[in-house]
Amino acid sequence: MIVEPSLPDKSKNMSQWYDDVISRAELIDNRYGVKGFVVYRPYAMMIVKRIYQMFEEELEKTGHYPALFPLVIPEKMLRKEAEHIKGFEGQVFWITKAGYGEIEEKLALRPTSETAIYPMYSLWIKSHKDLPFKLYQSVAVYRYETKATRPLLRGREFLWIETHDVFRSEEDARKQVNEDAAIFKRIVWDKLGIPFLHLRREEYDKFAGAEYSYAFDCLLPDGRVLQIGTTHYLGTKFSKAFEIVFQDVDEKNKYAHQTCFGIGISRILAALILVHGDEFGLVLPFDIAPIQVVIIPIPKKEFDHNKLMKYIDDVSQILRREGFRVLVDDSEKSPGEKFYYYDMRGVPIRIEVGPREVDSETVTVFRRDLRERLTVSITELVETIRRISTEISNILRERAEKYLRESIVYAETLGDVLRYVDEGKKIIKAPFCGREECAEELKVETNGYETRGYIEDEDSSNKCCVVCGRPASHITYLAKAY
Amino acid sequence: MIVEPSLPDKSKNMSQWYDDVISRAELIDNRYGVKGFVVYRPYAMMIVKRIYQMFEEELEKTGHYPALFPLVIPEKMLRKEAEHIKGFEGQVFWITKAGYGEIEEKLALRPTSETAIYPMYSLWIKSHKDLPFKLYQSVAVYRYETKATRPLLRGREFLWIETHDVFRSEEDARKQVNEDAAIFKRIVWDKLGIPFLHLRREEYDKFAGAEYSYAFDCLLPDGRVLQIGTTHYLGTKFSKAFEIVFQDVDEKNKYAHQTCFGIGISRILAALILVHGDEFGLVLPFDIAPIQVVIIPIPKKEFDHNKLMKYIDDVSQILRREGFRVLVDDSEKSPGEKFYYYDMRGVPIRIEVGPREVDSETVTVFRRDLRERLTVSITELVETIRRISTEISNILRERAEKYLRESIVYAETLGDVLRYVDEGKKIIKAPFCGREECAEELKVETNGYETRGYIEDEDSSNKCCVVCGRPASHITYLAKAY
Repeated sequence: MIVEPSLPDKSKNMSQWYDDVISRAELIDNRYGVKGFVVYRPYAMMIVKRIYQMFEEELEKTGHYPALFPLVIPEKMLRKEAEHIKGFEGQVFWITKAGYGEIEEKLALRPTSETAIYPMYSLWIKSHKDLPFKLYQSVAVYRYETKATRPLLRGREFLWIETHDVFRSEEDARKQVNEDAAIFKRIVWDKLGIPFLHLRREEYDKFAGAEYSYAFDCLLPDGRVLQIGTTHYLGTKFSKAFEIVFQDVDEKNKYAHQTCFGIGISRILAALILVHGDEFGLVLPFDIAPIQVVIIPIPKKEFDHNKLMKYIDDVSQILRREGFRVLVDDSEKSPGEKFYYYDMRGVPIRIEVGPREVDSETVTVFRRDLRERLTVSITELVETIRRISTEISNILRERAEKYLRESIVYAETLGDVLRYVDEGKKIIKAPFCGREECAEELKVETNGYETRGYIEDEDSSNKCCVVCGRPASHITYLAKAY
Repeated sequence: MIVEPSLPDKSKNMSQWYDDVISRAELIDNRYGVKGFVVYRPYAMMIVKRIYQMFEEELEKTGHYPALFPLVIPEKMLRKEAEHIKGFEGQVFWITKAGYGEIEEKLALRPTSETAIYPMYSLWIKSHKDLPFKLYQSVAVYRYETKATRPLLRGREFLWIETHDVFRSEEDARKQVNEDAAIFKRIVWDKLGIPFLHLRREEYDKFAGAEYSYAFDCLLPDGRVLQIGTTHYLGTKFSKAFEIVFQDVDEKNKYAHQTCFGIGISRILAALILVHGDEFGLVLPFDIAPIQVVIIPIPKKEFDHNKLMKYIDDVSQILRREGFRVLVDDSEKSPGEKFYYYDMRGVPIRIEVGPREVDSETVTVFRRDLRERLTVSITELVETIRRISTEISNILRERAEKYLRESIVYAETLGDVLRYVDEGKKIIKAPFCGREECAEELKVETNGYETRGYIEDEDSSNKCCVVCGRPASHITYLAKAY
């Protein structure tokens, strides 16, 4: 029962590996026939539902309430904040017809919901007593991507959560931007084991309409980074455009300070697949796995089958009582086929039970993360599964963190940058002046590396921009990106 | 602290009552500015999330898996099943532009998802081993309603769940239609306490593309019925249009039998508000309530406030330990204002705690359903809340059932029908031949009563259609409808 890897090496041919996995693990179907729109099959949707639930619980714990705003945004609303529409105009889907005729004012499908939500905030928020005001919505958004689309990585319909928070003061709003980052870390880093860079985006690269933006970039096996979340301090730009005014304690009317936070659920799923997967398929952290433990009977002709199945039933009851999501696969497929099937789907723990296990009151536990087998006595099973369940996300995270850490190099000069590019280094950090012209020059010179922003407490004093030689304002991170 | 009712009598002026409640309980905002599109405020969305969760759990228990298909449907797919497009064509929103240009093939927003889902089923389903195949998706659908829209009752964007199931045989599919009804009853009737008629729709009134349809109609206080769910046996109409073919055990290729089931989440929310509410606001069944128990301190100047709050904290801990959703409102508003506020929001149980309660180790429990106060000893609190929690949905359901039962009259002749219409009877059942011409004539004569369909085991033998005098094929239910 030796199982051979059946996928290409993801670090060498990520694209092929990814297409194979999303199809063989029955995650995503890309044959719907409309560019950038994919079908989430049940196994993906079960994972997606859990990711949503994890974030929603965390958001509710931090004072956010759920809400739901319309999919459609009238053109005049979308145009209210000048920078915002400039940033999104080229990406909007428009509804112009309904039934047998034209509609009066064309309607945008939400590319993001500031301009749908803030007109209502203007009606709801009146006093400092209404603040802070914190909502989230879990929806799909629509952007007319003109670049090549890739399932989950870049689509025209993608799933996300957006929060829209309103505060009395800049200070409160800035604190929220930090809290958003903490929320993101608690789920994506801690629970899903996906490490990321938390970068302040360059001025010319911030969200259309924001004062400043942070983003979470994770690193994929092909060396490109993927933005999986963003948080923005909007200042009073939108509150001025949409008249979100509150009466403060001093009885003066003031414009509110706002933040928003976008959690890219589709892209987090892509990262989950790509960061942890191996040549046998998906590798899922324990908490997120739709099936946490699969039990596979290894029958032998000379052994009483009822006795085997009775033992397996006892084992599954013990585990279910503890709240684990357990599946017993007693279908007619061979054990080897089943191993392949659940390996591909990333089931964290496989339990194999044959005559030897029944007779010795043990089970054979196979860990998907380390691909190791161990024999566990039935009396120690629950404790062992508990231990492994927490180990898995640590092991996956450490593995991914090591890859991320080793992929970052520091360049002091443009020569260094270009040498690292030649050497295929994935993330190059370098002193930078913060000007878009230099970023554009860098992108051309490096054949596609973008300035992804910086970590604020990294020291750049006495350094010079690798392009123009002006004093560096920070150390920027250069990478190719999705 | 006498609280006066603040709303009109919903049986006399439902429209005003409804507008007042959805606005004062902060459920729905109808000021978004696009006809038929409303905003779900947090309190509504918390209820909506629970309704979704109840159904999703029940669907998963009965073998359904979650999935998600695109919002957009290419025109050629939507046109594949002839009857289906005829039924929906006038109601479709079309995307024709994106970015700065036109798109190649115009895209419909899903009015329902058969034509989005079944092309994929054709790719996925190959063998009898793949059957039954049962998926659901929780999404919003879009229909260009030309009639007057009303929040939740009739909108252009509404929330629902749709299931799409595939079977080997007609018999299996028919069983599913029955199971769908049982699922619907377990949630809507049993848990939400909303009674309904389960009617087989008239032939001319079935879902576009179905062999036959059933629907769940509940009765609103204004005497109109509201369709809150539908189940359909599609036969092989769609499997022929979309080539959903499986190889059966006899190795022959056969067209699959299909069913679908639409659960109108927005309308169920409307029914929950309208059926149970009273002149003080919402009345929520215990299971669905975002806040199940609110605790309100009744401070007295001469009594130690810390002692009062310590006692309240103990009470809330006792209840939280049992898993109840408890809120302590120690804000500065007066008790009377708080009573008004939580009454309006339909919080099932209010606990009032003042010095008298602290000294006697009791609490005062106010039930929202009966508007009764009772004094409960702290040692019996949990047990009392448990008992009340189950009583509430029974009481609400019985009250609503009585109203539904008493609203149905039987007419043997057209004269009887017209007399009942004059008397303002809400639901009139009458022998009927099943022909659309007669239904149209009835609608004109009765000034708007529609044939809503029939209960299959109601006997119509030896009866004649009240319009044409031909032998009746069944007893139809006549009512005005949303």
